[in-house]
Amino acid sequence: MAKGNMLIAQSGGPSMVINQSLVGAVLAAKANKHVGKIYGALHGIQGILDESFIDLRKETKARLEEIAQTPSSALGSCRRKPTQEDCEAIFKVLKKLQIRYFFYIGGNDSADTARIINEAAVKAEYEICCMHIAKTIDNDLLENDHTPGYGSAARFVACAIRGDDLDNRALGGVKIDVIMGRNAGYLTAAAALARVDEDDGPHLIYVPERPFSAEKFCKDVKACMKKYGRCLVAVSEGIADKDGTPIAAKFSQEVDSHGNVQLSGTGALGDLLAKLVKEKCGVSRVRADTFGYLQRSFPGIASEVDQQEARQVGIEAVRAAVDEDVSRGSITIKRKKGKKYAVYYEVVPLRRVAKDTRHLPDAFLNKAGNYVTEAFLDYVRPLVGSLPLGNRFEQLKGKK
Amino acid sequence: MAKGNMLIAQSGGPSMVINQSLVGAVLAAKANKHVGKIYGALHGIQGILDESFIDLRKETKARLEEIAQTPSSALGSCRRKPTQEDCEAIFKVLKKLQIRYFFYIGGNDSADTARIINEAAVKAEYEICCMHIAKTIDNDLLENDHTPGYGSAARFVACAIRGDDLDNRALGGVKIDVIMGRNAGYLTAAAALARVDEDDGPHLIYVPERPFSAEKFCKDVKACMKKYGRCLVAVSEGIADKDGTPIAAKFSQEVDSHGNVQLSGTGALGDLLAKLVKEKCGVSRVRADTFGYLQRSFPGIASEVDQQEARQVGIEAVRAAVDEDVSRGSITIKRKKGKKYAVYYEVVPLRRVAKDTRHLPDAFLNKAGNYVTEAFLDYVRPLVGSLPLGNRFEQLKGKK
Repeated sequence: MAKGNMLIAQSGGPSMVINQSLVGAVLAAKANKHVGKIYGALHGIQGILDESFIDLRKETKARLEEIAQTPSSALGSCRRKPTQEDCEAIFKVLKKLQIRYFFYIGGNDSADTARIINEAAVKAEYEICCMHIAKTIDNDLLENDHTPGYGSAARFVACAIRGDDLDNRALGGVKIDVIMGRNAGYLTAAAALARVDEDDGPHLIYVPERPFSAEKFCKDVKACMKKYGRCLVAVSEGIADKDGTPIAAKFSQEVDSHGNVQLSGTGALGDLLAKLVKEKCGVSRVRADTFGYLQRSFPGIASEVDQQEARQVGIEAVRAAVDEDVSRGSITIKRKKGKKYAVYYEVVPLRRVAKDTRHLPDAFLNKAGNYVTEAFLDYVRPLVGSLPLGNRFEQLKGKK
Repeated sequence: MAKGNMLIAQSGGPSMVINQSLVGAVLAAKANKHVGKIYGALHGIQGILDESFIDLRKETKARLEEIAQTPSSALGSCRRKPTQEDCEAIFKVLKKLQIRYFFYIGGNDSADTARIINEAAVKAEYEICCMHIAKTIDNDLLENDHTPGYGSAARFVACAIRGDDLDNRALGGVKIDVIMGRNAGYLTAAAALARVDEDDGPHLIYVPERPFSAEKFCKDVKACMKKYGRCLVAVSEGIADKDGTPIAAKFSQEVDSHGNVQLSGTGALGDLLAKLVKEKCGVSRVRADTFGYLQRSFPGIASEVDQQEARQVGIEAVRAAVDEDVSRGSITIKRKKGKKYAVYYEVVPLRRVAKDTRHLPDAFLNKAGNYVTEAFLDYVRPLVGSLPLGNRFEQLKGKK
């Protein structure tokens, strides 16, 4: 096999382990004699367009290992979707640098970007392997059992909800926590991991997979207040009404080039729901927190399983591209059957993970549409590792 | 010394280590032959009024140690300020239970509550030792070098800001993070611990100790955007204009019985500041997160020093009350002089920590009123422990 240069970049929302995939790929490439230069493009395809690179061979192994442990995208990120004009400009650069291996780490929008570049490359008869390395805390990529980044974000959410539920237990009232998740409720669903005793929160979980009704929500909150004397609610930022209009969209005008409305980085949805509970449920102490970007960037608490798998996905991408001469694809994580948790990795066509998103299956949601099932908990537990959930006084268990 | 019963309760906003103080006091009391029954009142003085108790001798040592590691107030909390009528009702209960030692864990409002109960006890010639055990993530108690709870909350803030700054570096624009702190900017100031390289955020820090001007804020943000191409802002929820009116108060109508306006549990301040930057600074990507209750309740990341000191404050309270026959007071943490960090504990009169709050001294804030000084960083570093700050590519250091 002829020696070829490699280019790697990161795209979309960062995660706690996206640098594990980057470092996995770079270390695997460094150890592979078929790889020549290793370019890191800054800020995704923007860095290719701007010819803004670093030489990843220059960074020491020790530094790479430090970066693997650091959240967010060490090469910078972007949300730019390439136009036909962009693609032509990108090829010009890739040709000039004699890039034979292109790795793009990101979510479904990023897989779509890799697909567009690959299709244009085929048209231009330029030989390049375009690999997508999956990443998204939303866990909404098709073809994957779960995606790198999700386990760590789910771990953050479970810990945050546990602490917040104990806080709510101490001071009472209704607490609403808004969790990331535009179309899929996987991250919000992970709030259920915080529950230790029957009367622990979260008491209610709302996800984008079920239409959100203000009336039903108030009814649920009232019933919970009656039963437990308090109520902790976990809700996805992407909850939408029966017509599919996101509740938060009423407060936001900002749209990116992929057509996504801004949902994160604002407390508006939480404040709206808190106002609703104050006015309609007769509860005086109502608080709302929006967990925001901390869910994807908080350092030092990543899930070990997630870290290992994110690293492996990067390694597998290089193996497939360089050793197996795969011409394009996305590295996916599949779960082995059996009681003991184990995974394997598989290359799937880019179009199968690009653009569309996956949702929580019906089996993971209860009939009332306000909580998750045991099946979901069985699914998610191995991904987050053991949680520091603590304990309560024995004499207080089961008491309001 | 005659044997006496003990009652302990928790009050005010919880912290990550408030249960360390509780467990420290309970274990010390269990080991002390002068202590009879050990009552835990549920939800502060409310539990005394309602005669709602648990028997803390019944809980195992193993469970107590688990609870020490658990955030939030294991006995429940309250924000109720006792009236004269409440005090009379409280004595009635305390007399009936033959309480000789009363421990109240909380902030300055709680110290004030302990003071009111003590004064009424003196008037009624009822012999009881009222001890206040300091706790507040705000770090605003007089007479203390720092307070239990602060180190862990500061650690959360430093980690959160580090992750968020790396996130902002990856995607650009302006990010505003709203941090707890009604009157004192100590917690917000701790954001500066996240800075590793010169161009790291936080780039701007605003605290209640300096009047907040929207005009000056926009000027600062613009200058930062020009210098670094992005901007990460840490701002206290309690920032106020030159007349002392909290900026957030314009959005909140809720006031508790201590006269405090609700600042936390809403994203309104962050959203207001984000709107300001969008409209006045010509920045398109502006995001705001309000860290909210996670700052005081996130499990598993408490500062080790903070945990140890919180435990010790509980132990010292029992020692002072039972062994040294102190009749009332607050346990304070003082820092020893010298290069190596070390503390000692001292009982001070309740009135000296009750009601009033401490502020960041001038030496901890820069002249422009938008950042902290090295003196503050020297002060805060030993309180939080080593932080998982990670690293960046060598080739990117110093680059926009």
